[in-house]
Amino acid sequence: MPSTNRQWKLAARPTGLITPDVLQLSESPLPAIEDGQALARVKYLSIDPTMRIWMADIPQYMPPVKLGEVMRAFGLAEIADSLHPGFKKGDKVMGLTGLQEFVVITGEEDRFFEKIASIPFLSDSDFLGTIGLNGVTAYFGLLDVGKPQSGETLVVSAAAGATGSIVGQIGKIHGCRVVGIAGSDEKCKWIKDELGFDHAINYKLPGWKDELAAATPNGVDIDFENVGGEVMQAVLDRMNLHGRVVLCGLISGYTKRDPSLASFGQVLIKRLRVEGFIILDYASKYMDAGKQLAMWKMMGKIKDKQTIVKGLEKAPEAINMLFQGSNIGKLLVEL
Amino acid sequence: MPSTNRQWKLAARPTGLITPDVLQLSESPLPAIEDGQALARVKYLSIDPTMRIWMADIPQYMPPVKLGEVMRAFGLAEIADSLHPGFKKGDKVMGLTGLQEFVVITGEEDRFFEKIASIPFLSDSDFLGTIGLNGVTAYFGLLDVGKPQSGETLVVSAAAGATGSIVGQIGKIHGCRVVGIAGSDEKCKWIKDELGFDHAINYKLPGWKDELAAATPNGVDIDFENVGGEVMQAVLDRMNLHGRVVLCGLISGYTKRDPSLASFGQVLIKRLRVEGFIILDYASKYMDAGKQLAMWKMMGKIKDKQTIVKGLEKAPEAINMLFQGSNIGKLLVEL
Repeated sequence: MPSTNRQWKLAARPTGLITPDVLQLSESPLPAIEDGQALARVKYLSIDPTMRIWMADIPQYMPPVKLGEVMRAFGLAEIADSLHPGFKKGDKVMGLTGLQEFVVITGEEDRFFEKIASIPFLSDSDFLGTIGLNGVTAYFGLLDVGKPQSGETLVVSAAAGATGSIVGQIGKIHGCRVVGIAGSDEKCKWIKDELGFDHAINYKLPGWKDELAAATPNGVDIDFENVGGEVMQAVLDRMNLHGRVVLCGLISGYTKRDPSLASFGQVLIKRLRVEGFIILDYASKYMDAGKQLAMWKMMGKIKDKQTIVKGLEKAPEAINMLFQGSNIGKLLVEL
Repeated sequence: MPSTNRQWKLAARPTGLITPDVLQLSESPLPAIEDGQALARVKYLSIDPTMRIWMADIPQYMPPVKLGEVMRAFGLAEIADSLHPGFKKGDKVMGLTGLQEFVVITGEEDRFFEKIASIPFLSDSDFLGTIGLNGVTAYFGLLDVGKPQSGETLVVSAAAGATGSIVGQIGKIHGCRVVGIAGSDEKCKWIKDELGFDHAINYKLPGWKDELAAATPNGVDIDFENVGGEVMQAVLDRMNLHGRVVLCGLISGYTKRDPSLASFGQVLIKRLRVEGFIILDYASKYMDAGKQLAMWKMMGKIKDKQTIVKGLEKAPEAINMLFQGSNIGKLLVEL
């Protein structure tokens, strides 16, 4: 066992990509463990887009990593020494190891360390991907939020990534027509030829939006969105009425400050549900609401006000009043 | 009865506000009605933000008005002459009358003409507002999509408008803390003093965002969004985890081409559901998914690929690879 632990610490907040001043490699003595603790040696570190979010000092779904702290990361580690009742030497665990060679497991909840079993045909590192966080993200995101129905069209962006590649395959298992968007011909070939996506579109080639249209002749019912920005916009343009967008990532925006992504950033981080609403869909139920509203109005529980413009010839001006904020309450033209 | 009908026809597509070239007032002979038709004289025209959308040649929830056609509008009219079995002289009807003095009702479904009854304490024009489309929009949008719970905080934008003013009052009926955002002190006074909103914020005054923060000490659970843009962003910044955004209108964007609104425009028009998704919320269910994923992987129904970078010292470069698209499948650092 080495006598030191090498660690990547967050030294500065990144503005774009990770530059050499952002993470600093430091070396410290291997920590001694106390009663109730275990020392684990990291074997694999999971590299995830969310790490870029953790580095930024912005509101997010976990506290940002503090300057001077070991950079947060998921990893797979093997217990090297243990005074912890739950772990013995040789056990394999996964959890928030951090970007370092050794981690002390204290049993604190916030580290989420789980022992992993040896499963035939599965390698240890699968626990960081297909059957780990990427897999469960794909699974619950698509099935719980996207609610795919057989015959529907699913589009996945970052389709050759750890999550997207599984999303598309689960979509196929559920009978969807699956179209993947990725950034190279090699990636496209992989998801189409090996993973069985129906179509794969390289968004770096000219004409890719036409290709997307051709690949989705019945429109798009589900967008499993990992990218944001222009890619997301192109998919939204193809969406069908009452489609679902699983907003799982906005990787195109993590390394730049694109204000057009700010809103969707909040939707993602806070797991908001945003629903477009147009009253025409409720036409068959108007009467129920109308009766209740009339009752409330007669009881004085709802009050209102009208701004009345007189004369048909004033109608165009009246329309503009709405956008200039010159009316209070309901704006009517009286003939 | 006059012998002519005055009509506003769409003559050009607007680029911003309605300019004199956009709508043209024309006069035509009063149409004669045939068997099965009725002639109605328009009394009130409802002026709604959506009219600006109908004028634009963009994908939308109804076909755009064609150039040369009478401009579409909801209105309330009285039957002046009838050869239609469903309507007799003197009946009052509401529906898509168009911006004109007289409308021929042919019984075609797409006009949605409904007879309205005389109800004590309610004036005819209420059928175009509080107990009409604005009322039912407020009712179903808030109750069905926003799902307010007693004690939650609801923010309404365009709060002194025909829809927003009702949304806030229904929110109060359902026990919410209601904060309205409007564009003048007069509007704010009305919704607070007369309609009973808990707070009213004039977004045209400096410091309004601080005021919004002070008025929502427990954050925001529901955003009933009528405005979009900067107002929406400020509310999103105050949203609580798992909050709901009822995207009912984006009036700040209708008269300008703001690309940052394009995405939400699609969400609105197509009634999409966009949900932010972060897998941490599903921690208690990981095992279920993990077993299924492991099974699929062992059965060959899910395939994957790993991109492995060797050595802890390569970790920062590995993070950048994600944003440069240089990995296929799961990206790992092997120590």
